Amino acid sequence: MSVNSLEKPVTIAQIASEAGVSASAISSFLNSRSYGIRLSAETQRRVLDACRKRNYMPKSESAMRLLYPKLGNVCFLLNSAVPSGVQNEYFGPMLSGVLESLADPTESVAYSLFDPDTDYTLPDAKLPQAMRNGSATRFIAASSPNPSLVSCAVQAGLPFVYLGHKLDIPGLCCIVPDYVDATKQAVHYLAGLGHMRIAYLTGPFGERLYNMTEMSYGFSEGIRECGLPMHPQYIYHCESRVGEFSKENLAAAADHLMSLNPKPTAILCFHDPAAAVISAHLQSRGYRIPRDISIMGCNDTMTAETHHPALTTIHFPLAEMGARAIEELDKRITLGGGQHEQTITLPVSLVCRDSCAAPTSDQ
Amino acid sequence: MSVNSLEKPVTIAQIASEAGVSASAISSFLNSRSYGIRLSAETQRRVLDACRKRNYMPKSESAMRLLYPKLGNVCFLLNSAVPSGVQNEYFGPMLSGVLESLADPTESVAYSLFDPDTDYTLPDAKLPQAMRNGSATRFIAASSPNPSLVSCAVQAGLPFVYLGHKLDIPGLCCIVPDYVDATKQAVHYLAGLGHMRIAYLTGPFGERLYNMTEMSYGFSEGIRECGLPMHPQYIYHCESRVGEFSKENLAAAADHLMSLNPKPTAILCFHDPAAAVISAHLQSRGYRIPRDISIMGCNDTMTAETHHPALTTIHFPLAEMGARAIEELDKRITLGGGQHEQTITLPVSLVCRDSCAAPTSDQ
Repeated sequence: MSVNSLEKPVTIAQIASEAGVSASAISSFLNSRSYGIRLSAETQRRVLDACRKRNYMPKSESAMRLLYPKLGNVCFLLNSAVPSGVQNEYFGPMLSGVLESLADPTESVAYSLFDPDTDYTLPDAKLPQAMRNGSATRFIAASSPNPSLVSCAVQAGLPFVYLGHKLDIPGLCCIVPDYVDATKQAVHYLAGLGHMRIAYLTGPFGERLYNMTEMSYGFSEGIRECGLPMHPQYIYHCESRVGEFSKENLAAAADHLMSLNPKPTAILCFHDPAAAVISAHLQSRGYRIPRDISIMGCNDTMTAETHHPALTTIHFPLAEMGARAIEELDKRITLGGGQHEQTITLPVSLVCRDSCAAPTSDQ
Repeated sequence: MSVNSLEKPVTIAQIASEAGVSASAISSFLNSRSYGIRLSAETQRRVLDACRKRNYMPKSESAMRLLYPKLGNVCFLLNSAVPSGVQNEYFGPMLSGVLESLADPTESVAYSLFDPDTDYTLPDAKLPQAMRNGSATRFIAASSPNPSLVSCAVQAGLPFVYLGHKLDIPGLCCIVPDYVDATKQAVHYLAGLGHMRIAYLTGPFGERLYNMTEMSYGFSEGIRECGLPMHPQYIYHCESRVGEFSKENLAAAADHLMSLNPKPTAILCFHDPAAAVISAHLQSRGYRIPRDISIMGCNDTMTAETHHPALTTIHFPLAEMGARAIEELDKRITLGGGQHEQTITLPVSLVCRDSCAAPTSDQ
C-alpha cells in the first residue's frame, strides 16, 4: 500500500459514505474483531474494499491487520494430541517449509496447538489465542483435523490452508501429497522386485482419517493393477494414537506377520518410523533385512535415511507443502476473499535405499 | 493486573507527575518501542513502575505489551544456518517443551530465525520482526549464538534465555545440560565395560562453541579419572555445519578409525545422529555392533531409540530446558528487570541400550 503524503488522510466518515454503512458500524467492525459481527459478509467486504482502496490507516494494530493481513503473522496449528508435536518428523519439515517461505526472513511463525475435542463453534470455546486476538491473519494447520476450528476460521474470513488432510469446508484450501499414488507406487515397486506376498501395516481398523483411507485405497489398487491376489491376512491394523504407533504394538505386529504360514516376503509400513521399529525388532529376532524380509516405509522422513539398513520409502514433499501453503495464503489475500475452495495434490516419488530386495527362493 | 472499575482510569498526566517525567516523553516511550530511546534506563523503569502500579491501560497494543509483558508472545529463535531448523531432533524437543509450558494452552510461540553473521548492534540491522514490532515480549534462543542479537535484546530490557550455550552477557539467563558430565559419564561407562581404546568423534578442530569445548573437556577428564592413557589418534575432528555432520564426512571418520592399528574398541560420538550414521556405515562394511565395535551416542534424541541396534547414549533434558526457560522468563517479569545473570545447569543421565558391550579378546 502506498500513501501519498500530500493527500489528506481519509476519515472513517468518508469510508462510511462510500460503503453505505454508518461510521459507528465500521468502527465497531474494525475494532472489535468479533466473529459474531452484525454486518453481513457482503457489507464487510464493501467496508474492507473501501478502506483498502483509500489506504485507510486505523489507529489500532488489530484493525490494521484486519485491513492489511500481511501485517499479521502466519499461524501454524497442530493437534495437541500429537504426542511429539513439532518434533514429529512429518510436521517439522512442514513448519520449516512455512518459515523458509516467508517474504521477510526476520518474520516469525506463530506456532500453536488446537484441541481435538473442543467444539470451537460453541460461544464459550476458546479459540487459539493468535486467532482470538487477531495477531495472526493467515492460518496453516496439519495433523488430525478438528473441523469445527477450521469452520470458525473460514467463516470469519481468515485465509486457511490445511496440510495433509482434505476437509469439505467451503473456502478452505487443502494441500495433500498424492496418498493414493504413494502406496500404489510402493506396491508396484515391490511387485516389480518379485514380491507376491506383501504385508501392509496401517492404522486402527475403522479409522476414517483421509491419509489412511487414501493410502489403503492406493495399496488395494496397486495389488489389483499388479495382478496379485489380495491376502487379507497380510493386512495388519495397528493401534495408534494420532498416527503414532507404540513400540510394543509394532513389535506385536511384526511377530504376528512373521508367524504366518506362508510368511510375507515384504512389509510395507504406513510411515517410516513404524518401518524402522519393525525393522529393528525383526533384526533383534535374528532376521536379516532385506535378505530375509524386505521392509519399506513411507514419507521419506529423517528416520528412513539414518536407519540401518537405510529404508526404501516414498518421498512426500513435506517442506514443499509448507511453502505452497504460503503461496496459496498470499493468493487469497491478494485476490480477496472469494471462494477458492480447492485441493492441491502434490506428487510423491520412490526413493530406493537398502531395505528391500528381490525375494529369495527359500522365503 | 486488576482494575477497580469504580476508580477513574489513571491518566498519562498523573503517571508523568508520579514518575517526574513529561507526559510527552512517556507517551513517546510507550508508543515508539524504539530501542534508541532518549529516557535513561532508570527513568524508563520509573515510568514502567508508575504505570504498572496504577494499572495504566494505554490504547495501543504494543504499549500494553511493553507494560504487561505476559500479554505478548514468547519468541523461540534459531540460527538460520541450522540446516534442519526446528525439525532438528535437538531443538524440536526444546520448542515443544516451551509450548507445553505456556500458562494458556491456546497461546502460540513465535518461531523465528536469526542470522549468524549480522551485527545486530548496527543501526540498519534488521532485528527479528517479533522483537522489532514488540509482538513478542520474552525470548528464548538455541543453536550457535549470535551474541550481538542477544546483547541488543538484553540491553532493551527484554527477558531472554539462551538454551544450550553460555554467553557472558549481563542480565542473560543461560540454561545448559551438564555437558562436562555427559562425556565424563560416557567414558566412565565404557571404561567400566572394559574399553581401553575409546575413540571420540567431535566437531571441527578449533571450534569454540560452548557445548563442544565442554564436552571435549569432559571426555579428557573422564579418560584421566578412569586412569586410561589419552591416545590422540582416537580423537577425530569431523567437519560440520552448525553441529550437523555430512554422511560422507562421518563415513570417512568411521573408515579412518577402523583402519588404525590397534583399532578403537568403542566410538563415542558427539551426538546421536552422528552415532547412527557411523553405526549404519560400519554395519554396511560388515561390522557387527556391539560385537565388533561399541558405538555410543549423546543427547538421547529419537534417532537413538529407533536406530538398530538402539543406541546407548546420554540423556539431555531438552524438553525440560524449554520448560525451565518459561519459568525463568516469568520470574524475570514478575521480579522486574534487575540483574539475574545466571547459568542454570541441568543434570544428564546414562541410557543403556544395545550398541555397547564389553570388548572381546579378539578386538
